[in-house]
Amino acid sequence: MKKLWRHCHAATMKGGAYSIIEDAAIVTDGARIDWIGPRAAAPAGFDGESIDLGGAWVTPGLIDCHTHLVFGGDRSGEFEARLQGASYAEIAARGGGIASTVRATREASEDALFETAKARAIGLMRDGVTALEVKSGYGLDLANERKMLRVARRLAGTLALTVRTTCLAAHALPPEFAGRADDYIAHVCDHMLPALVDEHLVDAVDAFCEHIAFSPQQVERLFLAAQKLGVPVKLHAEQLSSLHGSALAARYRALSADHLEYMTEDDAMAMAQAGTVAVLLPGAFYMLRETQMPPVEMLRRHGVAMALASDLNPGTSPALSLRMMLNMGCTLFRLTPEEALAGVTVHAASALGLRETHGTLEAGKAADFVAWRINRPAELAYWLGGVLPNRIVRNGEDVALPSSER
Amino acid sequence: MKKLWRHCHAATMKGGAYSIIEDAAIVTDGARIDWIGPRAAAPAGFDGESIDLGGAWVTPGLIDCHTHLVFGGDRSGEFEARLQGASYAEIAARGGGIASTVRATREASEDALFETAKARAIGLMRDGVTALEVKSGYGLDLANERKMLRVARRLAGTLALTVRTTCLAAHALPPEFAGRADDYIAHVCDHMLPALVDEHLVDAVDAFCEHIAFSPQQVERLFLAAQKLGVPVKLHAEQLSSLHGSALAARYRALSADHLEYMTEDDAMAMAQAGTVAVLLPGAFYMLRETQMPPVEMLRRHGVAMALASDLNPGTSPALSLRMMLNMGCTLFRLTPEEALAGVTVHAASALGLRETHGTLEAGKAADFVAWRINRPAELAYWLGGVLPNRIVRNGEDVALPSSER
Ligand SMILES: [Zn+2]
Ligand SMILES: [Zn+2]
Repeated sequence: MKKLWRHCHAATMKGGAYSIIEDAAIVTDGARIDWIGPRAAAPAGFDGESIDLGGAWVTPGLIDCHTHLVFGGDRSGEFEARLQGASYAEIAARGGGIASTVRATREASEDALFETAKARAIGLMRDGVTALEVKSGYGLDLANERKMLRVARRLAGTLALTVRTTCLAAHALPPEFAGRADDYIAHVCDHMLPALVDEHLVDAVDAFCEHIAFSPQQVERLFLAAQKLGVPVKLHAEQLSSLHGSALAARYRALSADHLEYMTEDDAMAMAQAGTVAVLLPGAFYMLRETQMPPVEMLRRHGVAMALASDLNPGTSPALSLRMMLNMGCTLFRLTPEEALAGVTVHAASALGLRETHGTLEAGKAADFVAWRINRPAELAYWLGGVLPNRIVRNGEDVALPSSER
Repeated sequence: MKKLWRHCHAATMKGGAYSIIEDAAIVTDGARIDWIGPRAAAPAGFDGESIDLGGAWVTPGLIDCHTHLVFGGDRSGEFEARLQGASYAEIAARGGGIASTVRATREASEDALFETAKARAIGLMRDGVTALEVKSGYGLDLANERKMLRVARRLAGTLALTVRTTCLAAHALPPEFAGRADDYIAHVCDHMLPALVDEHLVDAVDAFCEHIAFSPQQVERLFLAAQKLGVPVKLHAEQLSSLHGSALAARYRALSADHLEYMTEDDAMAMAQAGTVAVLLPGAFYMLRETQMPPVEMLRRHGVAMALASDLNPGTSPALSLRMMLNMGCTLFRLTPEEALAGVTVHAASALGLRETHGTLEAGKAADFVAWRINRPAELAYWLGGVLPNRIVRNGEDVALPSSER
C-alpha cells in the first residue's frame, strides 16, 4: 500500500549531515521508502493515502546501537547506598556490582526478563527509537546467555522495533571460572558461541577489553572464533585505560569500537582505515562522573564516523532515553547537534551492519521515521527530557505506544 | 465523593524523609486526603469507589518550585552555534542571549505564549508534576510582564496543575533602561509591581542578584516594596559569585534562595534561622558545565531544607523533566535519592509557600499523588529519562495527558 506523507521538512541525514529537504514529501510503499524529495517534485498521479504531517520535522527513526537492556533486577539500591556513603568495596562485599545483575538475570525466568526488557524498550521507543541493539552478557553460561538473546528476539517479534542481537558472553568472568579467564574464553569460543550462532541468536560478537575484564589476547581469540563462524565483531574498548582494543577491533574489521575515552591517535587511524564506527556513550561517562573525554576532535580529523548510544545497563547507565544522549553528547562531549543526530541515525545504522537499509531517509530504505513538532533539528539535542515525537512510523506504519512504560 | 486507593506502598515524605507506609491505603474526599495509613488500619465500612493501584509506589505529586516556562522562541539556534564554535561574544553581537528571549517574548501574543508554555507544562506533568512555579522576567515592562503572568494563571485554569506565579521583573535590565539600573528598579517598585499585585497576578517577588544583573542594594529596595505590598520574596543568589544575596533574602524571610553555588557558611546560617529553603538547580549547572558545586554538606549541617527544581528556561536549562533533576541532584550534587525526592515534594512546597497544603501525603492535604511502577523509591532518581508514572492524581482525580507535548 502506497502512502504519501506531506507537509513536513526532512533532515534526511544522507552523508552524515542534516541534508535538509524543506517542504518535503515522502512516498512509502509498504515497509520501504519509494520516493522522497521536495513536495513540488513529487510524482504526479498519486492515488494512495495522503497524510498531513502538520509542518513537522521528519528524521530517520532513531537507532540505539549499544544497549544491555535485558537484565534481571536493577541497581537502584546500590545507587542509593553509594550516595549514602557506602564505598565500592563495601558494595562488592555485599555482593553488589555486576555480580548482582548476573545473579538476578540467572534467577529470572525468560518471561520475567521479557516483561522488564519490553518496558525499557518502550521507554526508548517513546523517544523515537525504531531500531536497537541488545547485548547478552549477564548470563555468562550457555543457558542464560541463550535466555537473554531469546528475549531480544522476542522483543523484535512483539514491538514495532528492529532488534540486532550481540553475544557479549565475554562481558565478565562468571563465578564458575574464577581465576580461569583463559578457560572461560576457550569455553565461549568452543561451546557457547557455536551453539548460539547455530540457533540464529547472534548477529554480532562483543567483548569487554579492560584490565578488570578480558585482555587483548583473550579478545583476539574470541574474534578469531567469531570470524570462523562468519559473525561480525565489536568491542568495549579504552573505557578506563588504553589497551588498544580499538585498533585490535579495527584489524578484525569490527562494526564498532565503543566507549574510547582513552584511545590513541594510532587507534583512531586504524579505525578510520577499517571503517569501524566509534560509538560514544555519554550516559556512563556522566553517571560515573568521568573526566577523560573521548577524543572527539581527533576522531573528526581522521574521519572516523561517530555514533551515540544509551549504553542502557543497570550499573553505569540506567538510561531510558536516547534523546537525552543527544544532549549529553553535545553538552559533555561537545558534539554538534548535527553530529549527535547523525550518531543516532546513519552512523548507528553502520555500527549495527544496517547501513544499506536503515539510518537515512532515502528511496529503497526502510520507511522508519519520526515526525517531531520542533522548529529546527537542533532542538532534538537541546531540550533536556520531554517526549517530542509527534508521530513514529516504522515499516510505513504508525507506531502506537502505551501511556507509561511499566 | 470519597475514594479508597489501595494495594500500594506510600513514601509520604513527612518530615522530609521517605516515611514509608507499606501496604498502604489512602481515602480521598474530593480534592483532599481524608485518611492515609496501613491498609489493615483503614476505616471500616467504607462504601465509596475502591481503586486498586496494582502494587505501585505512591509519592506526593512532584512540585517544580523554580521555572521560567513562559517564553517566546527558544535558544536551540544559539546552542547549536556555540557547539559549532561561536563565542559568547559573537552570539551576543548577533543579538543572542537573554536579549533574544526578551525580544521574542515581547513579540509573541498572549495566546502564542500560552500554547508553547502549555506544551512545556505538559512535559513536566508527564513526569508526575502536579504543582509548579512560573516566573515572569522576559517581558521587563508592565504590559509584557503582565502578559507572562496572565499566561501562568491561564495554565492553572486549563491544566490539572497548581501554579504559583512569581514576578521576576528584576531579571535583567531592559534595553529602554540601559545604563540606568537604579531607575529601572524604582520603576518596578513604584509602578510595575503595585499594578501587577493589584491585578492578583503575583504570588511572590524574585530578582537576579549578580554582578551581571542587580546589586544587593537594588534587590533590597525591591524586597522593601514587596514587603509593603504583603508579597513574599525569593532570590536568584550566589550562582556565579558570592554577593551574600542569600543572607539578604533570609533577612526578608524569603521563601527560598536559589542556585547558591557560591554561598558561604554565614549565608547558610542565616537561611537556616529564617527557614528559607535552598533551591538547587542542577540543570543549569550541567548545561553550563559548572564545576563549583553548591555546598550540600554545609546545608545539611545547618539544617537548611533543600529543594530541587528544573529551572526550565531557554538559555541555561531547557529541561522538560523534573525527574531528570532528581538524577542530576544525586549524580552531580551528591544528594541521596531520599533528599532528592524530598526536594521535589515537601521542601519544594515550602519554597512556594504551600507547606500547609501540599508536598506530603497526610490527612487534610491536597489529594495530589503519583502511582509509580517501581520497586523502591530510589528508582525515581536512578533511571535516566523514561516515563515512570503509572497514574497521576490531582485533587483526587486522575490526570489524563496527550501522547506528545507539542
Ligand atoms: Zn556496554
Ligand atoms: Zn531561574
